[in-house]
Amino acid sequence: MVLLGEKEFFKGIGEIAYEGRDSDNPMAFKFYNPEQKVAGKTMREHFKFAMAYWHTLCGTGTDPFGPGTKQFPWSTSSDPIKAAMDKADAAFEFATKMGFDYYCFHDFDLVDEAETLSESEKRIHKIVDYLKQKQKDSGIKLLWGTANCFSNPRYMNGAASNPDFNVVAHSGAQVKIAIDATIALNGENYVFWGGREGYMSLLNTNMKLEQENIGRFLNMAKDYARGQGFKGTFFIEPKPMEPTKHQYDFDAATSINSLREYGLQEDFKLNIEVNHATLAQHTFQHELQVAANAGMLGSIDANRGDYQNGWDTDQFPNNVLETAEAMLVFLKADGLQGGGINFDAKTRRNSTDLEDIFLAHIGGADTFARGLLVAEAIIQRSNYGSLLENRYASFNSGKGLDFVRGNLSLNDLYDHAKLSGEPKQISGKQELYENILNQYI
Amino acid sequence: MVLLGEKEFFKGIGEIAYEGRDSDNPMAFKFYNPEQKVAGKTMREHFKFAMAYWHTLCGTGTDPFGPGTKQFPWSTSSDPIKAAMDKADAAFEFATKMGFDYYCFHDFDLVDEAETLSESEKRIHKIVDYLKQKQKDSGIKLLWGTANCFSNPRYMNGAASNPDFNVVAHSGAQVKIAIDATIALNGENYVFWGGREGYMSLLNTNMKLEQENIGRFLNMAKDYARGQGFKGTFFIEPKPMEPTKHQYDFDAATSINSLREYGLQEDFKLNIEVNHATLAQHTFQHELQVAANAGMLGSIDANRGDYQNGWDTDQFPNNVLETAEAMLVFLKADGLQGGGINFDAKTRRNSTDLEDIFLAHIGGADTFARGLLVAEAIIQRSNYGSLLENRYASFNSGKGLDFVRGNLSLNDLYDHAKLSGEPKQISGKQELYENILNQYI
Amino acid sequence: MVLLGEKEFFKGIGEIAYEGRDSDNPMAFKFYNPEQKVAGKTMREHFKFAMAYWHTLCGTGTDPFGPGTKQFPWSTSSDPIKAAMDKADAAFEFATKMGFDYYCFHDFDLVDEAETLSESEKRIHKIVDYLKQKQKDSGIKLLWGTANCFSNPRYMNGAASNPDFNVVAHSGAQVKIAIDATIALNGENYVFWGGREGYMSLLNTNMKLEQENIGRFLNMAKDYARGQGFKGTFFIEPKPMEPTKHQYDFDAATSINSLREYGLQEDFKLNIEVNHATLAQHTFQHELQVAANAGMLGSIDANRGDYQNGWDTDQFPNNVLETAEAMLVFLKADGLQGGGINFDAKTRRNSTDLEDIFLAHIGGADTFARGLLVAEAIIQRSNYGSLLENRYASFNSGKGLDFVRGNLSLNDLYDHAKLSGEPKQISGKQELYENILNQYI
Amino acid sequence: MVLLGEKEFFKGIGEIAYEGRDSDNPMAFKFYNPEQKVAGKTMREHFKFAMAYWHTLCGTGTDPFGPGTKQFPWSTSSDPIKAAMDKADAAFEFATKMGFDYYCFHDFDLVDEAETLSESEKRIHKIVDYLKQKQKDSGIKLLWGTANCFSNPRYMNGAASNPDFNVVAHSGAQVKIAIDATIALNGENYVFWGGREGYMSLLNTNMKLEQENIGRFLNMAKDYARGQGFKGTFFIEPKPMEPTKHQYDFDAATSINSLREYGLQEDFKLNIEVNHATLAQHTFQHELQVAANAGMLGSIDANRGDYQNGWDTDQFPNNVLETAEAMLVFLKADGLQGGGINFDAKTRRNSTDLEDIFLAHIGGADTFARGLLVAEAIIQRSNYGSLLENRYASFNSGKGLDFVRGNLSLNDLYDHAKLSGEPKQISGKQELYENILNQYI
Repeated sequence: MVLLGEKEFFKGIGEIAYEGRDSDNPMAFKFYNPEQKVAGKTMREHFKFAMAYWHTLCGTGTDPFGPGTKQFPWSTSSDPIKAAMDKADAAFEFATKMGFDYYCFHDFDLVDEAETLSESEKRIHKIVDYLKQKQKDSGIKLLWGTANCFSNPRYMNGAASNPDFNVVAHSGAQVKIAIDATIALNGENYVFWGGREGYMSLLNTNMKLEQENIGRFLNMAKDYARGQGFKGTFFIEPKPMEPTKHQYDFDAATSINSLREYGLQEDFKLNIEVNHATLAQHTFQHELQVAANAGMLGSIDANRGDYQNGWDTDQFPNNVLETAEAMLVFLKADGLQGGGINFDAKTRRNSTDLEDIFLAHIGGADTFARGLLVAEAIIQRSNYGSLLENRYASFNSGKGLDFVRGNLSLNDLYDHAKLSGEPKQISGKQELYENILNQYI
Repeated sequence: MVLLGEKEFFKGIGEIAYEGRDSDNPMAFKFYNPEQKVAGKTMREHFKFAMAYWHTLCGTGTDPFGPGTKQFPWSTSSDPIKAAMDKADAAFEFATKMGFDYYCFHDFDLVDEAETLSESEKRIHKIVDYLKQKQKDSGIKLLWGTANCFSNPRYMNGAASNPDFNVVAHSGAQVKIAIDATIALNGENYVFWGGREGYMSLLNTNMKLEQENIGRFLNMAKDYARGQGFKGTFFIEPKPMEPTKHQYDFDAATSINSLREYGLQEDFKLNIEVNHATLAQHTFQHELQVAANAGMLGSIDANRGDYQNGWDTDQFPNNVLETAEAMLVFLKADGLQGGGINFDAKTRRNSTDLEDIFLAHIGGADTFARGLLVAEAIIQRSNYGSLLENRYASFNSGKGLDFVRGNLSLNDLYDHAKLSGEPKQISGKQELYENILNQYI
Repeated sequence: MVLLGEKEFFKGIGEIAYEGRDSDNPMAFKFYNPEQKVAGKTMREHFKFAMAYWHTLCGTGTDPFGPGTKQFPWSTSSDPIKAAMDKADAAFEFATKMGFDYYCFHDFDLVDEAETLSESEKRIHKIVDYLKQKQKDSGIKLLWGTANCFSNPRYMNGAASNPDFNVVAHSGAQVKIAIDATIALNGENYVFWGGREGYMSLLNTNMKLEQENIGRFLNMAKDYARGQGFKGTFFIEPKPMEPTKHQYDFDAATSINSLREYGLQEDFKLNIEVNHATLAQHTFQHELQVAANAGMLGSIDANRGDYQNGWDTDQFPNNVLETAEAMLVFLKADGLQGGGINFDAKTRRNSTDLEDIFLAHIGGADTFARGLLVAEAIIQRSNYGSLLENRYASFNSGKGLDFVRGNLSLNDLYDHAKLSGEPKQISGKQELYENILNQYI
Repeated sequence: MVLLGEKEFFKGIGEIAYEGRDSDNPMAFKFYNPEQKVAGKTMREHFKFAMAYWHTLCGTGTDPFGPGTKQFPWSTSSDPIKAAMDKADAAFEFATKMGFDYYCFHDFDLVDEAETLSESEKRIHKIVDYLKQKQKDSGIKLLWGTANCFSNPRYMNGAASNPDFNVVAHSGAQVKIAIDATIALNGENYVFWGGREGYMSLLNTNMKLEQENIGRFLNMAKDYARGQGFKGTFFIEPKPMEPTKHQYDFDAATSINSLREYGLQEDFKLNIEVNHATLAQHTFQHELQVAANAGMLGSIDANRGDYQNGWDTDQFPNNVLETAEAMLVFLKADGLQGGGINFDAKTRRNSTDLEDIFLAHIGGADTFARGLLVAEAIIQRSNYGSLLENRYASFNSGKGLDFVRGNLSLNDLYDHAKLSGEPKQISGKQELYENILNQYI
């Protein structure tokens, strides 16, 4: 069922996404079926797919070598509130046509920032009221909200890590308003991405003070939100660099280390983004695993990088191999803690048809759906699980079990080694595991 | 004063290292002067330069596309103990001629591994006795020892993280023997570099179990050493990858996170290697700063990577810009905690003259000495310090100070931002800082 | 039909590669079927799969941090000729069991190099005689031969580009002998990979002289081979770096530029290796396309790199997405000119079972077969071809056609632009193309 | 002498650049002295330093995560011609204060593009007339002009390589107008940077047709300019990627290959940019050497990349090690052919003081001046030249000379190798060369 406002911005586009399944139609889902059960849950429940307001509604295609290319029909009004409402209409039309249950936003994706903080806050309140009604009408929910504390020139030296307290305070105010909006919209989670929390040059930077200030800031934000009754999870979104030379939340392990140092490990989890993983020289699945091991696999920003280009290309997910390996980690970790899969991806600068936005999301959702099906098949139908279990079987009994239980000393290891002689060589059989994976794709 | 054994392996080489200062002689120190005072300490005390046994005495120049090229006169005996003694003679001759006070080793750098653990241990004992005498005669000390748990085929699937308990135990035995040797030689520190502690493929890996096993293992090793009276510091040496696809101790922040998880933050610090920093997409100075912020700047492995090649080239340090920035961090952190500067660097495969080993170490030590002099000049003579101090002055009084003291809430930030209006734009002045640096090089 | 020598080195392994098709057996081909017709040719004809002597028979798993791990039953004799014959038996047993029609070698893969050039040449002659008989008995052919002018320490400063003429001459002698062997074995092509033809430091390098010397050398080799009646193609194999800091044949375009400068563009084509493409920051398909555009797509070295590691991992092909895109270029270019698909790939250092070698080749061949099937389906069943054709339709008529025919001047373009006004915006529709690709995988 | 317009935009800034030499003042030149003779020419003649209109006058600091931060006093008029004249005043004030003799521009740096081609052309004519007078008054000259055929959305799919002929024609018109302007201003050279000449996805790209179209286009432009009496040199500026995934002029060797294919090697040379070199995994000095070897070292775009970030950071040059090695190549190649050194660099986004622009250019010019002085000292005072000469001495006589003269066959090499036996091992002595370099910095 498609629910539409007075205006229909995507006229004639998107309705076909659910038709033509099992054909080779690149404009319809082939694998994503929201109600299909996989490993005990529907795909809808597994994924909680979300539309990213910023790319999908606001991203006109600027890049460092040219301005935007895309003319959006919802961006024609010169009145900021009217423009914001049109954008919201487009957002909910899009999510409805895609069959997505969630959306995500930064504060000033919803409505343009005003000249003053007070005026900006008023605008946010107005559009939040409008969105409440849209949510009610459509059943679409807010996966998470966040504050954009990186685009405005005032944040050029950082937000919570800014050397000037006045800027720190300003970002605090902005986060307060964004938390209020998130709570008002029943947002399930709240995200921090420290786009400018890092440095351009270590020469002019007091890294220790800056990081301690971030710790204080996050604690304040958490305390405030909890005081306002927010029950959701906070997410840190790691990224190694860009726009800064070095971002403090470099990757999952670095972010977990900071959260521990700040004493925030109970309230915060991670939002893992594919392209941020690869920019940090990790794989997507690696970052998921690191987060899962720490009990912090909170949410996913779905996109794809280009392995030959060294910046955040934010392409739509289309690599089923990468996603299948990721979904293996995902299923073994029993999914996400509180979050969902948000398409933090943009159509290419030269993809200027409105239709391209649908094509991209269809391809992306299908890639995740297929990855999930592959992962489930490997777990259910192949001997992958028992192979892996057997590989570590020496820790299930005898001295190995004593070791795992912490009952051995270094001298015990020494004695065992002397007695048992040279260990038998055991192949890692990587190629076998890779073949198994490929058998199910 | 140069102390030589019966054989002189580097005949006619190296004595000139301390002559010709202030000339343009590339075979003599121009900047390194052990007794020169810089920032209150002699260079000798600041650096504690160490020779790396493995590269300098054992590294014959193999690479993935060809065998060794270098014929070492100390590697001619077929008797392993005789060969080990010759190698020790060469080591102490070299360090003496260079005027270095320290050396570092892996267990099987000292003497070739034998067929059995027991026989290997015996060999280690013999060469340790010999080294004791060499140390006594020369005054040269052991900066740190370590166990090579990555080269032997038995470690192909990891050592402490091996899926087979028998291999874990074997590495435990090897570490015990290496700790014993380090203690016997009054080693000041003990290092862990987890060369194969990581994975080749996440598909066949139980990352969580492997990392927990490492935690158990390190605790056992620490407990053993402390029980034997070892008072020194343990170092973890981060590296992101190579030989594994992904090494668990990826970088400084990741390693600190693991140490916290294992409960080892009191006994362990970090050994930062330049080329490992750059392989992890960090700068050398970044990694030093991260370690220093955590109070864990323990030691340095000095070398240099090639920014265009993606593997560990382990070239000798020769980039005075990189080293000057690093020495700024070093001086501000008040130097190293327990460790020194170990030349973990190798002459190029096609640098086959014995003389080249001296040239390389002279260039490397000079690069650090010059970096230190530059850093001191910047701190003492320029307004760098006050510029940086002023940049963060807003946190020294008023609301900024309240913030740093933890006395503000998010609502306070909001109120402050509303009252104070749009913050004044303040240039980061990176180019000024860079010019200052260049003025002193 | 499997032909075996007296010894069977891979007893009980590999025979199943052709059984179990259409099951999920990771030890059997699922997609590779030598006799299946695709786009007018059998898979056998398209691919001409070849076994690489060096990795498959000689690669024991050494890496920069440890010696070999693999014990090969064919490498037990201390007599070099006997060992070489055992190795040849293993090679032909393996290729036969895999159903591959071709093999490739470096001179000293076949038999260990001797102390002198004369003795080495004699050894080569002996093993060539043996291989002639093996070829005759099995029907397996030589895809290409080459000389290893990079492993021996004498080549540490380069071979044809060596600063010392004596080394240049030695490599000339070695190439002569390898060409003789290739001709004697009816080799279809001859390859040059300049592993050490490049530099470690530009400071000590006369790049211009070195490259001119390579040009002279290649011309001499070509003239010699043609004089001996060789009718095959010569291939240059580009690689950007490793073991050198910079290799002269950096990538396809660079190599083509050199061949043009040397006047060799008629006799030489390119051998494109996947992992070399990605090390050069290109994709595999990009390098194929560049070669094809120049009429120089000669042969393929099949393997895979690791996008997160910056060195030549030479993993077996298993990325069907990469291979499918490559096979699109391959089919549109009408395949390879003279060459085939050689598995220049090695099992992981910790894949120590003999069986792993089969698993790896099965996975690799299947990946290419599947890629070919996908590419054919896209071309035959989707509208991919017409979409692409239409994208460039403006050059098929009118002024666009005049332009392509070279009949317009800059002033004509200026006049046309003035008349025709602002061009209509046309989406590049990248996401549509990507969805089409994914529909067929 | 400082010549100023009615308005002085940089009031009180920059005059000090030539004062305070030999102090440690980071706001004054320490090494750049225009009239100082080095290797037979003044620094002014060697460098021909140029100001880049785009970064210095137009670059407000936008990046992919935020809009511009910089408020330029010359960008306040809403009348495009008035704004253009103010900008020109600022440009000539800046260059005069810096003591630079040259400037460079893209067409729409000079004046904003209008709605139609005709109107844009009129604007260009007006500002060209104004610039003529500015040039006459100040003595400042145009090093090169170019057309920006990458920023406007119409070029999102490429300019000369666009799949739509109408866009190709439009870029042709723009290039014609830019060539006219360059000629009118006595520009010494004309540059082509193909920012969007490449592809985002190979899937939707006919690479062969696109490259052939570029070849036709460049020939038309050359013929037109020559027909208009242009005597200067055309430059291609290589860059590997960004904004495209892959740019056709990837690096120097690739560009030379294309120029040869297009038949343009007589009229075109290369403009080498530092950060483009490093993005291509080359060093700056490598790209200079490749260009010089082909007789195509035309001009330099001076800046610096960040070795840890994978995009074009365009920082100001400040790495004297890199520049010293580059100046060695520069001096040995006898400088640039027609071009100069253009500061294609931007102050950081958070460097928002007008003063920062001066600081950055002062640091940059000083870095080149110091590099030149170091290179000259190495050539004049060290034995670097003779060491390098001796390394290749075997080609100066005997068989080596015969080889270089092309008088040997492969059989001759074979005979020589057999006679002369195993070549003597000769160290490459890289560390010695590196020490020499460091002695002079």
